Amino acid sequence: MMLLATPTAVADATAASIFVTVLARGPIARSEIATALGLSAGTISRAVRPLLDSGYLVEDGAGGPPRLGRPVVPLRVVADREFMVGVKLTADHVCGVVVDLLAQVRASREAAVTDTSVPAVVATVTDLVEQLRADAPGPVTRIGIGVGGHVDSAAQLIRFAPFLNWRDVPLPELVSATTGLPVVVENDVNSLTAAEQWFGAGVDVPSFAVVTIGAGIGCGLVIAGSLVHGAVGLAGELGHIPISADGPRCRCGNTGCVETVASEEAILRRVRAASGRDDLDLATAVALGRAGDRDAVGAFTAAGDALGRALAVVANLINPHRIVLSGEGLAASDLFESAARASFATHAFGQAVECDLITRPLPDHTWARGAAAVAIQHLFLGPTPTNGR
Amino acid sequence: MMLLATPTAVADATAASIFVTVLARGPIARSEIATALGLSAGTISRAVRPLLDSGYLVEDGAGGPPRLGRPVVPLRVVADREFMVGVKLTADHVCGVVVDLLAQVRASREAAVTDTSVPAVVATVTDLVEQLRADAPGPVTRIGIGVGGHVDSAAQLIRFAPFLNWRDVPLPELVSATTGLPVVVENDVNSLTAAEQWFGAGVDVPSFAVVTIGAGIGCGLVIAGSLVHGAVGLAGELGHIPISADGPRCRCGNTGCVETVASEEAILRRVRAASGRDDLDLATAVALGRAGDRDAVGAFTAAGDALGRALAVVANLINPHRIVLSGEGLAASDLFESAARASFATHAFGQAVECDLITRPLPDHTWARGAAAVAIQHLFLGPTPTNGR
Repeated sequence: MMLLATPTAVADATAASIFVTVLARGPIARSEIATALGLSAGTISRAVRPLLDSGYLVEDGAGGPPRLGRPVVPLRVVADREFMVGVKLTADHVCGVVVDLLAQVRASREAAVTDTSVPAVVATVTDLVEQLRADAPGPVTRIGIGVGGHVDSAAQLIRFAPFLNWRDVPLPELVSATTGLPVVVENDVNSLTAAEQWFGAGVDVPSFAVVTIGAGIGCGLVIAGSLVHGAVGLAGELGHIPISADGPRCRCGNTGCVETVASEEAILRRVRAASGRDDLDLATAVALGRAGDRDAVGAFTAAGDALGRALAVVANLINPHRIVLSGEGLAASDLFESAARASFATHAFGQAVECDLITRPLPDHTWARGAAAVAIQHLFLGPTPTNGR
Repeated sequence: MMLLATPTAVADATAASIFVTVLARGPIARSEIATALGLSAGTISRAVRPLLDSGYLVEDGAGGPPRLGRPVVPLRVVADREFMVGVKLTADHVCGVVVDLLAQVRASREAAVTDTSVPAVVATVTDLVEQLRADAPGPVTRIGIGVGGHVDSAAQLIRFAPFLNWRDVPLPELVSATTGLPVVVENDVNSLTAAEQWFGAGVDVPSFAVVTIGAGIGCGLVIAGSLVHGAVGLAGELGHIPISADGPRCRCGNTGCVETVASEEAILRRVRAASGRDDLDLATAVALGRAGDRDAVGAFTAAGDALGRALAVVANLINPHRIVLSGEGLAASDLFESAARASFATHAFGQAVECDLITRPLPDHTWARGAAAVAIQHLFLGPTPTNGR
């Protein structure tokens, strides 16, 4: 596999942790890095030198006016040192971005997917990547791809992508062959979590969860600074934990799942049943809820209640420092957030209720940017270790 | 705090990982360690030398007959290099053991607790420790204490021990002052998990959960090789995750908790209500269940069903390689295990159902031995990092 043969930009774990610290907190002085990481000045200097030589870091004060005494020269990441492409696959379109090393979106494109066969999608992704490389302000060195479903990040295989009906597809290998670049694939919610970890709400905490709401309920977990993949890459299936003893059957085949109450489909099912309008869409359900329609309000409140219980499960089992609520479903958060917070407060155990629960509406291109963030992480950390996932 | 000032037995993380590998798999050749950890022969040799010099490791072939060619001399841990005392606190008694570096129990004692005030318990523990030091085959160098409740392992404080009604008790500091030894305190289920991690069912997997059943339902989590403590030390409150929308109020004050159906108290409540016998005890409930009494069978089956759903939550959210069921409640596993396994299979998501689900009945002294295992881990890894928990 191409990725595994690609060297990382840093020599070892110490250099990687220093780079991540500069990424998150730069410009930052060496002494502050030393304090933050508990490393000696000598260790910092030895690790920083090759990163300066290779152009990933720069001394921010370079070129500034000379100062008396020993100058404090903060370090920062050279955002334009190289660029990454991030791609998000869905059933009907592909969204792609070019980001710099600070995960700032520098260009974006979309393409329709009319044929979900593997060769057709590979061709569409390849075209999109080539266009984005032309858009990029500098060299693109890696590609990250995010997809909903079961991704085995250690094997770099899409085990099962329900929206595309794919099983065991070695997508990175295929796209690497057509583009000549290292490619990494990751579950879409984990990609979003990686972006939050290095460039967002996870920068200042060792453990946090990202919970996405929308068509499904997803969850990414960072514990002790590492993304949790699980034994077979299935960690974070929060939409399918059982929170009630009965209820309608879930699309996964089980009963009692969070998604049977809290997903968009579940909300729609309930509003449709109450209104008798089988063609009612989500926008109408939201409008009904905002207009005070009792059934719509009830459906969103029930969804919020179930979501709050799911968040309490995360808090009671993992006790993360922070939970970040995100996803397209947040557009209607006025209809369920207070129910979710009340339910969370009711079911969180003891001090676990103090978990920092924040909402992060998705800006444009967030999913594709997440995939690019995974590519940045792989540049500096290498592939997911097989035995540590 | 005494513990924090105590140096660890190994110089760095590499030496620690080598020691743990020898602990789990020794006698083991250097070349096998190198393969297992992905380290060079030179790195192994450099790290092993001080461990040999300080007597923690020995070359197993030393003193054996001379052989032709380059000998393979496996390494093993010197179990009797030093000894640890492990203590488990409960509301009415204290159980203590002496273990060697392989966590083998070499002596054990118990003492009654008639006064649960902090000074009285410290005095009882101190007496027990002094007796165990006299029993030990060699020098005792550390003490581990396990207690049910909310332990902040980073601060080394018992935040809340409901059975003792203690809040914010710096027990390690107090026992260290009376015994002159470094002392570490840990939640009792986490202690059991630490023992499984280094000396039991967790040795060969990077992630696993220990779920204990009995008076309460507890859970310890190891992910990517590290015990998960959570932001405030509350990770693993599996007994208090909500699995139903209503039901009786839990002792924690919430509703829908796993413990309202699956704890011994919940089973007893149900059998008592059905039989009209308010003084019926657990042994009688078990006997009724084994005799086929419908209500007792129903109570144990409901408990098994709830337990299975809780295990599915762990599998779907964490996707560990293995789940180890343990605890006093396993003595009646014939009455609930099949219901638990059926419920687990029903609610586990996709391939997460393949999680290795094993039962480990508790031998004598297991809880105290777990606390001693925490002391062994602290000897080699140092205290829990404040920012990585």
